[in-house]
Amino acid sequence: MSEELRSLLWTGSSLRVLDQLRLPFETEWIECTSYRDVYLVIKNMNTRGAPAIGVAAAYGMALAAREARTTPQPAQFVLDAGAYLKSARPTAVNLAWAVDRSLADGAPSLGKNPQAAADELAAFADRLAQDDEDRNLALSKYGAELFQDGDTVMTICNTGALATYRYGTAFGSINEAFKQGRKIQVIALETRPYLQGARLTALELVTAGIPFHLITDGMAGFMMSHGMVTKVIVGADRIASNGDFANKIGTYQLAVLAKYHGLPFYTAAPLSSFDFSIASGAEIPIEQRDENEVLSFAGQRVAAEGAHAFNPSFDVTPNELLSGIVTERGVFRHPFGNWERP
Amino acid sequence: MSEELRSLLWTGSSLRVLDQLRLPFETEWIECTSYRDVYLVIKNMNTRGAPAIGVAAAYGMALAAREARTTPQPAQFVLDAGAYLKSARPTAVNLAWAVDRSLADGAPSLGKNPQAAADELAAFADRLAQDDEDRNLALSKYGAELFQDGDTVMTICNTGALATYRYGTAFGSINEAFKQGRKIQVIALETRPYLQGARLTALELVTAGIPFHLITDGMAGFMMSHGMVTKVIVGADRIASNGDFANKIGTYQLAVLAKYHGLPFYTAAPLSSFDFSIASGAEIPIEQRDENEVLSFAGQRVAAEGAHAFNPSFDVTPNELLSGIVTERGVFRHPFGNWERP
Repeated sequence: MSEELRSLLWTGSSLRVLDQLRLPFETEWIECTSYRDVYLVIKNMNTRGAPAIGVAAAYGMALAAREARTTPQPAQFVLDAGAYLKSARPTAVNLAWAVDRSLADGAPSLGKNPQAAADELAAFADRLAQDDEDRNLALSKYGAELFQDGDTVMTICNTGALATYRYGTAFGSINEAFKQGRKIQVIALETRPYLQGARLTALELVTAGIPFHLITDGMAGFMMSHGMVTKVIVGADRIASNGDFANKIGTYQLAVLAKYHGLPFYTAAPLSSFDFSIASGAEIPIEQRDENEVLSFAGQRVAAEGAHAFNPSFDVTPNELLSGIVTERGVFRHPFGNWERP
Repeated sequence: MSEELRSLLWTGSSLRVLDQLRLPFETEWIECTSYRDVYLVIKNMNTRGAPAIGVAAAYGMALAAREARTTPQPAQFVLDAGAYLKSARPTAVNLAWAVDRSLADGAPSLGKNPQAAADELAAFADRLAQDDEDRNLALSKYGAELFQDGDTVMTICNTGALATYRYGTAFGSINEAFKQGRKIQVIALETRPYLQGARLTALELVTAGIPFHLITDGMAGFMMSHGMVTKVIVGADRIASNGDFANKIGTYQLAVLAKYHGLPFYTAAPLSSFDFSIASGAEIPIEQRDENEVLSFAGQRVAAEGAHAFNPSFDVTPNELLSGIVTERGVFRHPFGNWERP
């Protein structure tokens, strides 16, 4: 079981996206040949994870630039495509950042030489993918140092190769520690409503051969109070200048529970997931998704007729609940603020 | 929408059990004509809720006494049936208590007059059902006083008529406040893995006409930190002498979160759910259920192949996290210990 899971593959003229809605039981790839296809796979969460949707959006911009070659106003076409792609999901910073950087990189050629712009945007997306891979590998090596023999590491959502271009962040750190031979095990929260933990993280853990148990999201406190967890590590969709961070709904209460039980609580994300333009987590927009994701499962209604639901997709954890932030520069600790070196 | 949901109906010769595994979309009754049928509906959670399974077990004993009339050793037959029924679920005290009380009530006739014993056990079960109804109505009136106009009350699992013989406990208190005209609303946790919140509490809330939203279990902390909850009330499956109590998995972490956010946190249960034979919650056995309840969702496998899960069905909340315990004698508050009067 050593094959590596991949979230995205660029063919040179299309983006192949592993359909994570069908995992873990079906391995189906969606062929995106236009930026609108890319918008839909991000919006509908066929692919997800802050770094992965950043890379997907960059390839979406490359596809937009290709399409623009035959339009009367190619520069405007690409600008519009960028705005459209950015609207797919609001919380993760990587998506908007990738689109803005694509536009900046391609800008010189956009109005004059559409073919050159298309090539430049595809090259930029390749660099972004490679960059994500490099950052994740580096941060995983720092993150691995947090874990020792005997640790049981709790995590939420999915932060492995499926959530990134490669390697993963929080999962990457766990996996690197395991590959280095440390005797650790994992408790993974199933992570309703999308069940990233049960469907995706469990698949990555099985693939990596790491011993683990799944739990429902309501069991985390029980496990902590019974000494069945020693550390918690999670991913991040956007980190503010003061270290506050947005991540999958359920993260905030996990941080409160870790604090109450005296357990170290880490987040792991590359510096590309930082948003230095905002002072605190209060400025991070929280995506509200369709209530049917809570009221239904796999297309089947589970809640009583007449019921309505809230469905915030993320929450914000204040920096005071954090023991450290794992990045490709090392593990930052309190007081947060100088992000040049840990 | 004023019809009342009922969990159990005694026909005089059988126990009709509403199949809660099929709710909210199908209303099917299971006809139990032997104590083994009753064992199965409790074990498989076709019916659940501490008070309801207590009453069901008492009728199970009445059925055992009827069956015993044609056996060579009727007294032994009924004793064995009692031990079997008690093994169905270990955490709620009501089940064991109802069986033991049935045996005590029926004991004088058991060896001598099987028909009289059968009649006595059926009469005892009737009294227990009526007693549960009376207690729940009384405690709901005390519990209702906890809520004022503008309150948003968070609750977990199902504690209404479906969990009891009638009226409910925590839900009974909410419902009574609403019926008295107080402008309150509810946030109900879906309560994985069994989804009592989404399937059963949502049905009871719709039936009662109380405004509410469902959330996933991981959203509770988010709601609290955003000021969207003012009070929390839950049920109890067993309360120890010091006020520690067992309830549906997820309750403990809800209590920790309520404490962290400065919110009042109550449990509601009749005194029949108290176990004065134990000093603290450490002595309450926690039922571990089949891992497939976690690995599946609504009967469909969701977790990756090769995954395993923990599935503790209950957790214990220490009394220091409790603002009060609602009973038919009133609302007990710290220091807990004198259970004669609040």
